[in-house]
Amino acid sequence: MPAALELHELLDGNDVPGIQAWLADNPPHVIADEVARADDVRSVLLFRLLDKESAHEVFEELDRVDQHKILDALRDQTFRDIVEEMDPDDRARLLGEAPANFTARVLAGLSPHERFLTAQLLGYEQDSVGRYMTPEMVLLKEHSTVGEALARVREAGAHAETIYTLPVADSSRRLTGIVSLRDLVLAEPGEPLAGLVDTEVVRAHATDEVEAAARLMQDTNLLDLPVVDSEDRVVGLLTIDDALEVIEEADTEDIARQYGQSPVEGHYMSVRVVTLARSRIVWLFLLIVAATMTAKVLQVFEGELEQATQLAVFIPLLVGTGGNVGAQAATGAVRALAVGELRPGDVLRLGWREARVGFLLGLGLAIVGSVLATVMTDREIALTVALSIIAICAWAAVVGSAMPLLAKQVGIDPAVISAPLVTTLVDATGLVIYFLIARVVLGL
Amino acid sequence: MPAALELHELLDGNDVPGIQAWLADNPPHVIADEVARADDVRSVLLFRLLDKESAHEVFEELDRVDQHKILDALRDQTFRDIVEEMDPDDRARLLGEAPANFTARVLAGLSPHERFLTAQLLGYEQDSVGRYMTPEMVLLKEHSTVGEALARVREAGAHAETIYTLPVADSSRRLTGIVSLRDLVLAEPGEPLAGLVDTEVVRAHATDEVEAAARLMQDTNLLDLPVVDSEDRVVGLLTIDDALEVIEEADTEDIARQYGQSPVEGHYMSVRVVTLARSRIVWLFLLIVAATMTAKVLQVFEGELEQATQLAVFIPLLVGTGGNVGAQAATGAVRALAVGELRPGDVLRLGWREARVGFLLGLGLAIVGSVLATVMTDREIALTVALSIIAICAWAAVVGSAMPLLAKQVGIDPAVISAPLVTTLVDATGLVIYFLIARVVLGL
Repeated sequence: MPAALELHELLDGNDVPGIQAWLADNPPHVIADEVARADDVRSVLLFRLLDKESAHEVFEELDRVDQHKILDALRDQTFRDIVEEMDPDDRARLLGEAPANFTARVLAGLSPHERFLTAQLLGYEQDSVGRYMTPEMVLLKEHSTVGEALARVREAGAHAETIYTLPVADSSRRLTGIVSLRDLVLAEPGEPLAGLVDTEVVRAHATDEVEAAARLMQDTNLLDLPVVDSEDRVVGLLTIDDALEVIEEADTEDIARQYGQSPVEGHYMSVRVVTLARSRIVWLFLLIVAATMTAKVLQVFEGELEQATQLAVFIPLLVGTGGNVGAQAATGAVRALAVGELRPGDVLRLGWREARVGFLLGLGLAIVGSVLATVMTDREIALTVALSIIAICAWAAVVGSAMPLLAKQVGIDPAVISAPLVTTLVDATGLVIYFLIARVVLGL
Repeated sequence: MPAALELHELLDGNDVPGIQAWLADNPPHVIADEVARADDVRSVLLFRLLDKESAHEVFEELDRVDQHKILDALRDQTFRDIVEEMDPDDRARLLGEAPANFTARVLAGLSPHERFLTAQLLGYEQDSVGRYMTPEMVLLKEHSTVGEALARVREAGAHAETIYTLPVADSSRRLTGIVSLRDLVLAEPGEPLAGLVDTEVVRAHATDEVEAAARLMQDTNLLDLPVVDSEDRVVGLLTIDDALEVIEEADTEDIARQYGQSPVEGHYMSVRVVTLARSRIVWLFLLIVAATMTAKVLQVFEGELEQATQLAVFIPLLVGTGGNVGAQAATGAVRALAVGELRPGDVLRLGWREARVGFLLGLGLAIVGSVLATVMTDREIALTVALSIIAICAWAAVVGSAMPLLAKQVGIDPAVISAPLVTTLVDATGLVIYFLIARVVLGL
């Protein structure tokens, strides 16, 4: 991207008119990416050079940590303008993770209406649908005509975050269904609204977990999901753009977790080195402690190792192969759980499937392993290696696929069953299998 | 989910009225999930018991392989009804991967209009925007009023896949911008349309890669992305539900690839064991061949191993730790590339960052490693292990993070730089580091 390089040079040269020209030429999401990549001083500089309207658009595209960074550096009037313009749900999420004095400063700067909406959303748990929904919608009455409903949309639509999905409620605000703006526009004004209402609509509770609601929207192809309280009264809409953001974040988190990393907020290139190291070290500590099992196992079999040093030559190959097979099975299971294709109760059926998959894989890989071992050593070691590969692969596939499901059954996030964890467990047990087979075949 | 268990029992008991009652009680996406999980005979049975409207809704929710399976088992009239009802873009994607005689059967059954639309989309490459866009939209003329535009929407809207985004074109069908139905409904009928048109809209070319277009929609929060041909003429719209599907598939593929697995189509529980094994074996073969490097390295250092068998005890721990650090760095980089936070040109900056991250991690892990080694063996081996951990961690972090970016620079999908590949490469080089340090410290 030559444009990006140019901006870098403009910033290095403190070329303010040049930077302004660059900002005018680029769409908000590109500018937001540059703001997020830059260091603190430069990102604030870039942001201040934006005109008011662009500033709002760029701000909307930023991650919460970057929004926070920008707001911290702004003076009162600009600060107030920006937070007043935010959607209530975005604002609630920004405040949910901020220190108390920052929250107080934001709430104090808001108009009474916006403050009310924000405070309401802040009452819901983090990661609940309530934090992500918009309360700004157009609610229609059951007993009206298409023309009356359209008039209501025209009257109240300007303040709503979306008007494409219109929840319909009875006199006590209970959800009876939804109408799409599409059907409303295509219908005759005199028709009763009731004929257009989709009453079999799925809904989320404001206290539900937001990831589940977002995946439900993906499954059902809804643009907006109506959100209700415990008495089925309409309290908001979860819009597709927020659902998309939730899904992207959840997937990024799952991927990070599967490699034993806690998720890091903020742009990948502006996160500090120490923060990155901290996000990875906990798991690595656990894994290296778990890996001491492999050292213990090898110490137990040190007698065998001294008699046949050549056995050591194939250790990394065997534990590597077992780890790979286990990691493949675990990743497949975690992903299938996340998108809803697997259920915890499938554990026996899945384990049996994977045992057969692992056995087939082991047969194939044993050929490579035994050829290599025959060339490098002798036939007896080759036989040991081949039999070990088959047994280790079948075992690794079963362990790898079953662990995420068992985790889910006892209420642990299956993504925490990271590939490295599976690998480490399979490593130690794989070594035991290897040396037991070696004892029999080599007669040690 | 007790409902699912019940269905299972109903199917086992061949209880047709019970199954019908279950089908009537459940929403299309739940039924689709059960159809996808079931074996061939049962999935077709379930599908045949649906009424016509539900059948269409359930069919829409199925994956392409499952759609194919169902269609293959249907008689002509039902077959024709189903394919005629599909959206042209869904139909084109179904046919794109089907055998020629199946395609011919589908095209022959269609009405001329639908056949024309489908054939047009089939002209685009698989994985291009053209295959995923809908040609069924409402195109507005630049020089009209809001009232005229709304009348046009009412007239043509029933056949369009969406009317929320309305592309606006000049007299030669060139895209001048888009109008949202929201703005149209909220405006006064007498206003000129020109005032509502967003002319700075992003667009995709029909030949662009669809994943990039879908990620662009995610970045810009667009509901629908206008699609143009090489002369900037409007040819369709990419809708958010298709974009979401593309992103979910791409993420699933990336995750599969990162563990050295080719992506498998279809429901996780109904894919055959042999198919699963095949999807994993290619990478495992490559990896086990690459892992022979570790055996070669150990053979080179067999003299050292015989002098100090205790060195072998820490091999799995060292290669495991190096592999984990490398995999973490690689996954982070691949994900940041996928969501657009990293660019190939960042390789040096990223490498230097990761070298420091790896060094910090190594310092922390060396403590665990040296304590363990001191307890199990002696101080000299403990020193060897500690120094090796530090060097291997820094090296692994650099290799793991740089490889995906280098892959992207030479045009290889970075997701192919799977964690196992990084691990395997780091394993062999890590062993060399270990034994070189051992030579110096132990004076071998």
